[in-house]
Amino acid sequence: MTDFAKALGRLRRRAPLVQCITNFVTVNDCANIILAAGGSPSMAHDIREAEEAVSGAQALVCNMGAIEDTGAMILAGKRANSLNIPVVLDPVAVGGTQLRRDCGARLLAGVHFDVIRGNASEIRFLAGQNASGSGVDAGRMDAVTEQNLRSAAALAGALALRTGGVIAVSGQLDLVSDGRQTAVFRNGCATMARITGSGCMLTSLVGAFCGALPEDCFAAACAAVAAMGVCGELAEARRLKNGTGNATFRTDLIDAVFNLTEQQLLEKVKYEVF
Amino acid sequence: MTDFAKALGRLRRRAPLVQCITNFVTVNDCANIILAAGGSPSMAHDIREAEEAVSGAQALVCNMGAIEDTGAMILAGKRANSLNIPVVLDPVAVGGTQLRRDCGARLLAGVHFDVIRGNASEIRFLAGQNASGSGVDAGRMDAVTEQNLRSAAALAGALALRTGGVIAVSGQLDLVSDGRQTAVFRNGCATMARITGSGCMLTSLVGAFCGALPEDCFAAACAAVAAMGVCGELAEARRLKNGTGNATFRTDLIDAVFNLTEQQLLEKVKYEVF
Amino acid sequence: MTDFAKALGRLRRRAPLVQCITNFVTVNDCANIILAAGGSPSMAHDIREAEEAVSGAQALVCNMGAIEDTGAMILAGKRANSLNIPVVLDPVAVGGTQLRRDCGARLLAGVHFDVIRGNASEIRFLAGQNASGSGVDAGRMDAVTEQNLRSAAALAGALALRTGGVIAVSGQLDLVSDGRQTAVFRNGCATMARITGSGCMLTSLVGAFCGALPEDCFAAACAAVAAMGVCGELAEARRLKNGTGNATFRTDLIDAVFNLTEQQLLEKVKYEVF
Repeated sequence: MTDFAKALGRLRRRAPLVQCITNFVTVNDCANIILAAGGSPSMAHDIREAEEAVSGAQALVCNMGAIEDTGAMILAGKRANSLNIPVVLDPVAVGGTQLRRDCGARLLAGVHFDVIRGNASEIRFLAGQNASGSGVDAGRMDAVTEQNLRSAAALAGALALRTGGVIAVSGQLDLVSDGRQTAVFRNGCATMARITGSGCMLTSLVGAFCGALPEDCFAAACAAVAAMGVCGELAEARRLKNGTGNATFRTDLIDAVFNLTEQQLLEKVKYEVF
Repeated sequence: MTDFAKALGRLRRRAPLVQCITNFVTVNDCANIILAAGGSPSMAHDIREAEEAVSGAQALVCNMGAIEDTGAMILAGKRANSLNIPVVLDPVAVGGTQLRRDCGARLLAGVHFDVIRGNASEIRFLAGQNASGSGVDAGRMDAVTEQNLRSAAALAGALALRTGGVIAVSGQLDLVSDGRQTAVFRNGCATMARITGSGCMLTSLVGAFCGALPEDCFAAACAAVAAMGVCGELAEARRLKNGTGNATFRTDLIDAVFNLTEQQLLEKVKYEVF
Repeated sequence: MTDFAKALGRLRRRAPLVQCITNFVTVNDCANIILAAGGSPSMAHDIREAEEAVSGAQALVCNMGAIEDTGAMILAGKRANSLNIPVVLDPVAVGGTQLRRDCGARLLAGVHFDVIRGNASEIRFLAGQNASGSGVDAGRMDAVTEQNLRSAAALAGALALRTGGVIAVSGQLDLVSDGRQTAVFRNGCATMARITGSGCMLTSLVGAFCGALPEDCFAAACAAVAAMGVCGELAEARRLKNGTGNATFRTDLIDAVFNLTEQQLLEKVKYEVF
């Protein structure tokens, strides 16, 4: 696995254009975190220009929060596949309603996703398991814990092999698996669940790293997960020191990505690969 | 009336899922203030999943800023009514254009709203009075003042009786009425009118409190109005101390909700019931 | 040219209602910067109310990031033209895709724009020149520099004469031309390119100033460009002092507009007219 520092440095040198078809709730944060990381975001989502727009990009992010843009995601995704541009999926609340189950199935049938980044309930659903979850949040029953780590890794790995892409599961523990190897990350903080868009922003970061490192989407996803977790900790330290709340935390989180150094990332990341 | 502190404590223990069909201008702030208060926001607005999505929620917020989603609001609202899930309406600029007058009439005809939260011009319009207002702001002529407090309360009370729901009027003075009792709140600050989304965020907070206290939407609306006013003052104190502006004020306002304690709320709220 | 300080003072006294048909990525920032400057934003974009909504406004901003609302922009723009309400265009990524080229042509054919504010690539495209650009950013080849300043001014001036409106080109150097006179501004900072919405916010500010100064859109555009550049420097000084990042910079930028005094603007603006 390419080390994290190298991936971050490469992202900043290459400044990949990351095309995002994403939801209106967190679209601004997603654009700003891509800019913070060193990438260049494009949020064009109109189906009439989806294919043309993605052709000039280095990565495509499809976020199912924008459920009404599923058609644009499929067109852009197919085009990206044909051009070997990495495609990342965020299957927001995929098991939650019939509409989302249908759109999720259409997306997976029509597009090859180089990385799928979801919470534990979304990934369990895609893996064909029973999943709980409420709104856009993972159900407590589905959470990846130290106790069920091995079985969660096996589930993510099996889904990776089935889809031929990398699976990233985020939560208190984060998992990234390509079916052969799985990395577990023990960074982040609870406040990340108290802002909207933690998941969407992480998926956008995965897109940015994949745009910089298209030849190794497993390493790219690991670097994004590591960066997000470390920056969550940096923002939480600031929040505790200043007595601020979730809104400042969101701002500090993006700032932390902006200021993240390769050394910080290497020193603070806590992970193991198995 | 259940006291405010109890309502806040209950919101944090119950963490209600609040379904919002709301506008793209302030949707991110609405989600973050619900999270700050202890709730869980879902911003799904697609008409194809509106009914299914609301079925798992503890409250529904319909914000007419999303005028194009009126159909989804009506479907979701009817479903929420049938399930006894509280429904809150923000009649954004309802008197401003023919489209908004029509959509407002359709919403009121199709859905029972447990709380309607608007500015003075919007509430005057719904009450069948002449209203001024410009863009999304209340007209100066319509403002609730110490001078016209009794007649404004009577107007809100009459609308409450006609709709069978609670009416909350926000401005320099805030009123909450269910037609039998009216509470007036004297918190807040002028900077709240210098950010976009003060009204939308308050409506979202009303939804969060109603989700936690569905048996008493009058108390829930009062708690939300009190919390917003108190947090506006806390954020304003910070702004004056730090010399910041409206953008930091918005962040500090949400932070204040995040950190609000029951004791702060009780100590700082200024209100009377008549 | 009316001096900048007077324009700012007038904006704050008149508090113009600025109707914006703009994109979902930066709409919240656009509304908040208009409020910061002293204006009143309305972000209604539904084609069914576009004409009625603009009739009560003092300025209209059309932002092609909302490519799906091109029809609403044309209706509202024609109405604004007939009422002598200034109309401002932000031709976001106009040369980037066939859809955008077509929509740009439809907008220019259907509406008279009092000001067009774009980056160097967008303005070059509208002027019929070859343009690069990637996503929403200007191409490095197209940038206005001290070396090509005169030819860039000539190009902007020619476009101004052709369209009969003012042309504002933003980048490291900013140009404003009405075809007879051109002002060049040397304010701002590189971090403005590391947040999403710098351009959209500037265009919104142009709308706010035009709403306050409809009789002189050249002066209004100059005042907006000056204010944005000066506030960018103020926010950058804060960022360097506090070690923050792009997200805090965005907040500080809007705050700086909120707190900007006429004296600050006059003291810090660096420009010449030729």
